Amino acid sequence: MSYTTPLRDIRFAMQELAGLDEILKLPGFEEVEPDVVDAILEENARFVQEVVAPLNTVGDRQPPVWRDGEVSSAPGFAKAFAEYAAGGWQGLLHPTQWGGQGLPQLVAAPAAENMQSASLAFALCPMLTDGVIEALLSVGSPEQRQTYVPNLIGGRWTGTMNLTEPQAGSDLAMVQTKAVPQDDGSYRLSGQKIFITYGEHDQAENIIHLVLARLPDAPAGVKGISLFIVPKFLVNADGSLGPRNDVWCASLEHKLGIHGSPTAVLLYGAGKGEVGEGAIGYLVGEANRGLEYMFIMMNAARYAVGQQGIGLSERAYQLAQAYARERIQGRAVEGSAGPVSISHHPDVQRMLLTMRGLTEAARAISYVAAAAQDKANHHPDAEVRTRNRAFYEYLVPIVKGFSTESAVEVASLGVQVHGGMGFIEETGAAQHYRDARILPIYEGTTAIQANDLVGRKTLRDGGAAAHASIAAMRDTLKALQSASGQVPMEYREGFCLLRDNFDQAIQAYEGAVAFVLEQAGDHVRAVFSGSVPYLMLAGVSHGGWQMARAALACQRHIQAGSQDPFHVQKLGTALFYGAHILPRTLSLSAAVRAGLVADASAALAGVA
Amino acid sequence: MSYTTPLRDIRFAMQELAGLDEILKLPGFEEVEPDVVDAILEENARFVQEVVAPLNTVGDRQPPVWRDGEVSSAPGFAKAFAEYAAGGWQGLLHPTQWGGQGLPQLVAAPAAENMQSASLAFALCPMLTDGVIEALLSVGSPEQRQTYVPNLIGGRWTGTMNLTEPQAGSDLAMVQTKAVPQDDGSYRLSGQKIFITYGEHDQAENIIHLVLARLPDAPAGVKGISLFIVPKFLVNADGSLGPRNDVWCASLEHKLGIHGSPTAVLLYGAGKGEVGEGAIGYLVGEANRGLEYMFIMMNAARYAVGQQGIGLSERAYQLAQAYARERIQGRAVEGSAGPVSISHHPDVQRMLLTMRGLTEAARAISYVAAAAQDKANHHPDAEVRTRNRAFYEYLVPIVKGFSTESAVEVASLGVQVHGGMGFIEETGAAQHYRDARILPIYEGTTAIQANDLVGRKTLRDGGAAAHASIAAMRDTLKALQSASGQVPMEYREGFCLLRDNFDQAIQAYEGAVAFVLEQAGDHVRAVFSGSVPYLMLAGVSHGGWQMARAALACQRHIQAGSQDPFHVQKLGTALFYGAHILPRTLSLSAAVRAGLVADASAALAGVA
Repeated sequence: MSYTTPLRDIRFAMQELAGLDEILKLPGFEEVEPDVVDAILEENARFVQEVVAPLNTVGDRQPPVWRDGEVSSAPGFAKAFAEYAAGGWQGLLHPTQWGGQGLPQLVAAPAAENMQSASLAFALCPMLTDGVIEALLSVGSPEQRQTYVPNLIGGRWTGTMNLTEPQAGSDLAMVQTKAVPQDDGSYRLSGQKIFITYGEHDQAENIIHLVLARLPDAPAGVKGISLFIVPKFLVNADGSLGPRNDVWCASLEHKLGIHGSPTAVLLYGAGKGEVGEGAIGYLVGEANRGLEYMFIMMNAARYAVGQQGIGLSERAYQLAQAYARERIQGRAVEGSAGPVSISHHPDVQRMLLTMRGLTEAARAISYVAAAAQDKANHHPDAEVRTRNRAFYEYLVPIVKGFSTESAVEVASLGVQVHGGMGFIEETGAAQHYRDARILPIYEGTTAIQANDLVGRKTLRDGGAAAHASIAAMRDTLKALQSASGQVPMEYREGFCLLRDNFDQAIQAYEGAVAFVLEQAGDHVRAVFSGSVPYLMLAGVSHGGWQMARAALACQRHIQAGSQDPFHVQKLGTALFYGAHILPRTLSLSAAVRAGLVADASAALAGVA
Repeated sequence: MSYTTPLRDIRFAMQELAGLDEILKLPGFEEVEPDVVDAILEENARFVQEVVAPLNTVGDRQPPVWRDGEVSSAPGFAKAFAEYAAGGWQGLLHPTQWGGQGLPQLVAAPAAENMQSASLAFALCPMLTDGVIEALLSVGSPEQRQTYVPNLIGGRWTGTMNLTEPQAGSDLAMVQTKAVPQDDGSYRLSGQKIFITYGEHDQAENIIHLVLARLPDAPAGVKGISLFIVPKFLVNADGSLGPRNDVWCASLEHKLGIHGSPTAVLLYGAGKGEVGEGAIGYLVGEANRGLEYMFIMMNAARYAVGQQGIGLSERAYQLAQAYARERIQGRAVEGSAGPVSISHHPDVQRMLLTMRGLTEAARAISYVAAAAQDKANHHPDAEVRTRNRAFYEYLVPIVKGFSTESAVEVASLGVQVHGGMGFIEETGAAQHYRDARILPIYEGTTAIQANDLVGRKTLRDGGAAAHASIAAMRDTLKALQSASGQVPMEYREGFCLLRDNFDQAIQAYEGAVAFVLEQAGDHVRAVFSGSVPYLMLAGVSHGGWQMARAALACQRHIQAGSQDPFHVQKLGTALFYGAHILPRTLSLSAAVRAGLVADASAALAGVA
């Protein structure tokens, strides 16, 4: 079950689709030369392949163990995390002034994605720590930053995000954890948080919990939630670790997948620490603005979960592709002298290319989003920054929703490619299928992403961001139309089908956007009954857009005499995407437009 | 995690869609009165709910244990199987002359389906025993029938089917197990079989293995495979059990799901029994016709796995629906005074109705198939028998492929409805997701079903069976068109959308059939690159056909003054199916018709 980072496709997507050259020219990245990027990608490949990837099975079979409130990590995890920290990987995209490397998102993205391929369970800890770093840099006080950020970036401490409570999952208005102000300016927190990833472990010296809680006089609902830092060990003025705080891991969950990562129930204020009763916490930013602060991080966290989907898909694909080439079974449908490898069978090819097409399309969208974020943060022109900020924020629910729903499909196909062996745990395909299933759920379910795409990202700007995408897609369509006369006969039919199906996809998406804009006023339930199909329609069509751009780039290279087999292979994947995956836009747009009927049918059916 | 057999929908589908009255009038079923059917359904409901359903979690958490070749069943399984046997359930559809009850397939079908809902892992043992009984009744000698069948029907013994070997899965031409003739007319078998469900256990006194093996002089390939009976304990002339045969369970597989069922590696001829070296076996039927005999059973076994898909989907739906009504989270999108149950949210309704629609459509197809089989076996008119035989055989790959692929989707949606709780094993949704994954694999993967549908069921008869279905669909479409003017305004829009989407679906399916017929000669790879989309297109459109018939029946009842809330609810499900699920035919047919491009793209992409 070896894994190799897909460097060729990563470089192609970075350079040809996301515009790496342009990003490296942005102010702040002047010192990031292309060969630095190459070196990072190669060192990242080495690290994740050699150090992290072997942990994937280990963590699944020997998950962390809870004992009296302490959690022992899965075998090898602590050592690998120490190497991760020593290698400076936690700081990749964080500012140099805090000990980070200040790289573009576009460079940090593939590194993070490859970590996820290597082991979702391992990569979750750095991923959540990234979120805590971002939050503190965004809204923490100078002192808070100084106290926590360098230790987090250095990998000496790790971070967690504490949102969920038993009665408050997607609906954070129902958060009940209490925070009572103390005379010294600190707070005492009490309550229960669940589903806290890496909420307790022994991989680092300290754990910094970011916790949503209510002040005694807080208004009800989401406007009464504040954000607190609660360190596992208090930090003395000199930076050394002080007494054990009153936050305790009551148990770990027994999960379907990502067994290697501890998912904790955390009790605040059980009175068992060295600080008396109530976990000592520190308000971040202003009171009652906790949810707003969480949303600052949310885009980053959601984007990162989207990367998990891409990373897992890539690994599931590699496993299936390797098995399909090894497994000899059955004769060729067109006739063969003897049995052939199953990779020769048309349906296995369909499955492999569906896996690969969804993976590469999702990767391309995520890199385009990363580049937009780099431009939003670093471009000298304010108008370009604003436009790219909007584009990035519009893409985030697509990256999260589409990549993770695709990951479930890809992992399931990966099992299917293996046939009966796929159902046997030792093969590894089953683990991907189990691991994948959390991805469309945490950091906001697909429905929550779809609500975001419909509400904040479509209705709020009157469809401006969606229409900007559609206009850009039409430019690509024009380029396809111009190019289609010049492509060799060998793949002209496929090229023309990609062009026509992309045309249909644009129309389907445009129609769905119009439906959402028109109906949201009077028929809001009808719109939301199709919100997930709307999101998936956006995903499939944006993926088609990037695959069409990839096809154009490959066609240019081939026409210019490229002998790189990658260009032909990538073209094949893009044409398959056009033929088999892009037509999903037809059924998805029909489901969106059926909103009124769907809502009325649900009322008749009595599911409420 | 309680489960209630969906008796109301079952009765509706049996009566209004599959024509129970007509079946009960067939020769041979004169004594099966409607109240007998009711009594069976009710007793079946009691048995599976009270005795079997509680085992589902137990088997998952405490799977069978292998020790020195012996297998202890999961706790409670042996006792429940004894009750199953004592209740006469194994004989439901087998002939009365052998101790069975000789009921129609249409009556046995829901009973078997409900068993599967209650516990896939438990129900697998009787399901495989059914296959062995059918095989022996079809091709066994009179003596073989007498020796084995009454004991199998009585539940004293159980049966297994031994096809797969490490190198021979979908491709049985590669079977290597050897059978050497002995002077007494018996054979000595040696070899290794894998993935043998209930290949070893302690729930019954004896296990009757049906084994594919090769005679020493057998031709290569599938025409050199013979079928043998290999009992775990030899049977003495007086029917008592004799010496332990030389067939041994080397290990049990560690599987993704259906943990409660032992999946055995069986060694034949390890020399450890009481009979010397080589497992003693008896040839069934003629030499070298084993594969042909297996195919006799195959339709029944594949149909039964389709029922597993329906049964699992029903249970996953019930679990999700119950959770969605209990879980309070978030306000209504149209506004609400406080938080509401998540079953109120449009996207949760979408998921629940997708689950319910797929389940009920698959159930209806399976009952229509069962009725066709009853007519094929019992109708006095030979032409009707022939026509129904063809219809049944055409439906079998659809029942198997569509119901099981749907089960994976339904179980996955079931996890999603639960949100984060769905990923926690104790909730039970995750088990359905794990269990479901084997269904599109065993008894022939979806690709194998699709090959069957394309090859034997479409090309071989020049599309006759498919066109007969399409003609019948058009009759239903006409009825929809006639009725649509009369339906109340309350759901007229939905009714018209069902009509229009069904019209599109018929055209899509007809176009795909035409593509398959036209291209199979010159472009066989192009056809098979779309074989699974072709199968799913057949499934979605045949499901839409049955849901359209259901909508018509409900509309008639409502118009006639029915106050039964079921009629309105079923109508709602059918309209949702029309709005959200039927449009899948658009993307599926596009994928089928893209066959040439898909095949060419795969060649470019280099996945082979």
